[in-house]
Amino acid sequence: MTDERLARAALCRLTEPADPRVTRALAQVGAVRLYEDVLANRSTDDLVADAAGRLTRLDPARELEQAATRGIRFLVPGDTEWPTQLDDLDHAPSVSDLGGRPIGLWVRGPQRLDEVGGSVAVVGSRSATAYGESVARELGAGVARAGRCLVSGAAFGIDQAAHRGALALDGASVAVLACGADRPYPVEHRALIDHLAATGAVVSELPPGCAPLPVRFLARNRIIAALTCGTVVVEAAIRSGALNTAAWATSLSRPLMGVPGPVTSAPSQGVHQWIRSGAASLVTGPADLLEMVGGAGEHLVDVPRAPERPRDRLTRRHRQVLEAVPVRHPAGLESIAATAGIALLHTQTALTYLAERDFVVRDAAGWRLGRRGRSDLPGSAR
Amino acid sequence: MTDERLARAALCRLTEPADPRVTRALAQVGAVRLYEDVLANRSTDDLVADAAGRLTRLDPARELEQAATRGIRFLVPGDTEWPTQLDDLDHAPSVSDLGGRPIGLWVRGPQRLDEVGGSVAVVGSRSATAYGESVARELGAGVARAGRCLVSGAAFGIDQAAHRGALALDGASVAVLACGADRPYPVEHRALIDHLAATGAVVSELPPGCAPLPVRFLARNRIIAALTCGTVVVEAAIRSGALNTAAWATSLSRPLMGVPGPVTSAPSQGVHQWIRSGAASLVTGPADLLEMVGGAGEHLVDVPRAPERPRDRLTRRHRQVLEAVPVRHPAGLESIAATAGIALLHTQTALTYLAERDFVVRDAAGWRLGRRGRSDLPGSAR
Repeated sequence: MTDERLARAALCRLTEPADPRVTRALAQVGAVRLYEDVLANRSTDDLVADAAGRLTRLDPARELEQAATRGIRFLVPGDTEWPTQLDDLDHAPSVSDLGGRPIGLWVRGPQRLDEVGGSVAVVGSRSATAYGESVARELGAGVARAGRCLVSGAAFGIDQAAHRGALALDGASVAVLACGADRPYPVEHRALIDHLAATGAVVSELPPGCAPLPVRFLARNRIIAALTCGTVVVEAAIRSGALNTAAWATSLSRPLMGVPGPVTSAPSQGVHQWIRSGAASLVTGPADLLEMVGGAGEHLVDVPRAPERPRDRLTRRHRQVLEAVPVRHPAGLESIAATAGIALLHTQTALTYLAERDFVVRDAAGWRLGRRGRSDLPGSAR
Repeated sequence: MTDERLARAALCRLTEPADPRVTRALAQVGAVRLYEDVLANRSTDDLVADAAGRLTRLDPARELEQAATRGIRFLVPGDTEWPTQLDDLDHAPSVSDLGGRPIGLWVRGPQRLDEVGGSVAVVGSRSATAYGESVARELGAGVARAGRCLVSGAAFGIDQAAHRGALALDGASVAVLACGADRPYPVEHRALIDHLAATGAVVSELPPGCAPLPVRFLARNRIIAALTCGTVVVEAAIRSGALNTAAWATSLSRPLMGVPGPVTSAPSQGVHQWIRSGAASLVTGPADLLEMVGGAGEHLVDVPRAPERPRDRLTRRHRQVLEAVPVRHPAGLESIAATAGIALLHTQTALTYLAERDFVVRDAAGWRLGRRGRSDLPGSAR
């Protein structure tokens, strides 16, 4: 075990996540020296003073050993498995006064974190609607179907729905927690979190055993945004924590997407605000999402079109003549020409053209609508 | 009566609306000369040949008289009441091969058309959902409340709902029809259309008596877009005619807005597509809409915010200390400092600050949460 790894394990325990003072100190003196400073209380620096209060019972070597026996590995920058996209956090503008890449990551589960580069975050309200959860499941399934990893928290509502969508397709799914990777939080999701740990990964920058304090969620959100190549917010009320993850995606210049909903639905209000301001792109499902995070020319969405109707292939003048043929009673050439506002000769030519294609038929009494002419009437151009 | 007015009344009858050949001819030779050419069949031009078929029973002077007795006035460019914003149509790129300002307008109702410059169009699907109709009513009411005129068609679904919203607030509402201004179409809306004619206006570029042929809706849509200073599409499936109105708003460089809905709702699909492409701005209600069409600094929307909670005013360090105070049992200073990861001295200062504000209380056993500290727990930062 290197000193570096030991020092980082200790610093995870000694400091709160995403403390910009830690980021600065690591850049200036490195983890080993920072740890030594704290041990020796060798600085009048606030950071060292804050950390010193946690020195009691600190034993990083034992902590790493115990974590390993419980299937939790500790990754640090420089490890082969370290997800280097997290390093962007050292240069991204801070959100809520937090920032910096994690000191290390505690990981439970078979999913290698150096292989989640193409992953997508699907996040949103804990108090989601049935609509929101259904869309989140669809998105989770779509991400899995595209062979990409899904990343979210482990909360009620959107988070769990997105994971379940991915898991239903045997996709790899990663939960980033705001407490120790060994703690099922919320406890109602113990089975889900254990399943993710068995098939994907459960990740935290907090050492095992740490409690899910509210401020830690704000720090956790930056990891979700930084680990992935795009974040989708499914439902988020004005105060939703999901919008904090959205802010991190923006700070990191990663694509940010939002799923719209009824304007009368409070859990969609925050998402609408972000789409309206231009900060988030509107996505309606997995296809849109994959287009946004895909490489150039990858996953291009077919713009949805209604099925073409026979009359769509007619020119405007032919349509004018067709629409001048009465629905109920046959009419003569002159009457049709006058109604259409098209010269007799041209009307005659058009009627012949339309008759050859079953739009109109001619009998002794005049012209009337044929099989195709009747098929998509009336007012269908509106 | 000028020759110009008579010629234009006749040309309304002789040609189909929005025929770009008419726009060109009017610019080149004027209405009087074009009418004379048709009367004399003096050109081998297609336009003259097409129009000649409608010469039978043409009597514009009598038509104008009869219209007047039925309360329908005929406006032409140059009239004081002419809505000059329609002139933009002569320079806007054509949509569906149509274009040009109307030859004239047949108007029924007290609303002066030179006073609808600040009006707003609310359009959408005939096959709207209850959600869409409810939003359209809200928008119609909001437009009326802002003292602006509402403009729409007279169809089922969104059109009628928008009008009813404006009428409920005694607002001025204008229906632009694709048939004669005397014809109630659809017949189910006879009462609504008559009410609009009694309080606002019913407008058409087609002379009285003309039938609502499908191609005429495409021409009508350009008037809705051109008359107003912004168009909102509430619900529009991929093939909806409302998207044709949207295309006109874009062609005229007028603000185009769309109301989102559930991504699972077909009538919202077309709107989402336009928002996604950036062609339409997302609006969630009257406030957003008015901000989009208002002058600089007018109708600015208050960005919705959740009510502030007491702990929102705390610094991050104070929150860290507060969150380190256990919910159930009192804790000592050292324990709280270690949990918060903040130096003893600073933790002491923070606890005193928090105690003065009822977030925490101190008793013989240590510190525990106070009234305000318990008020919005837990996980509230998520």
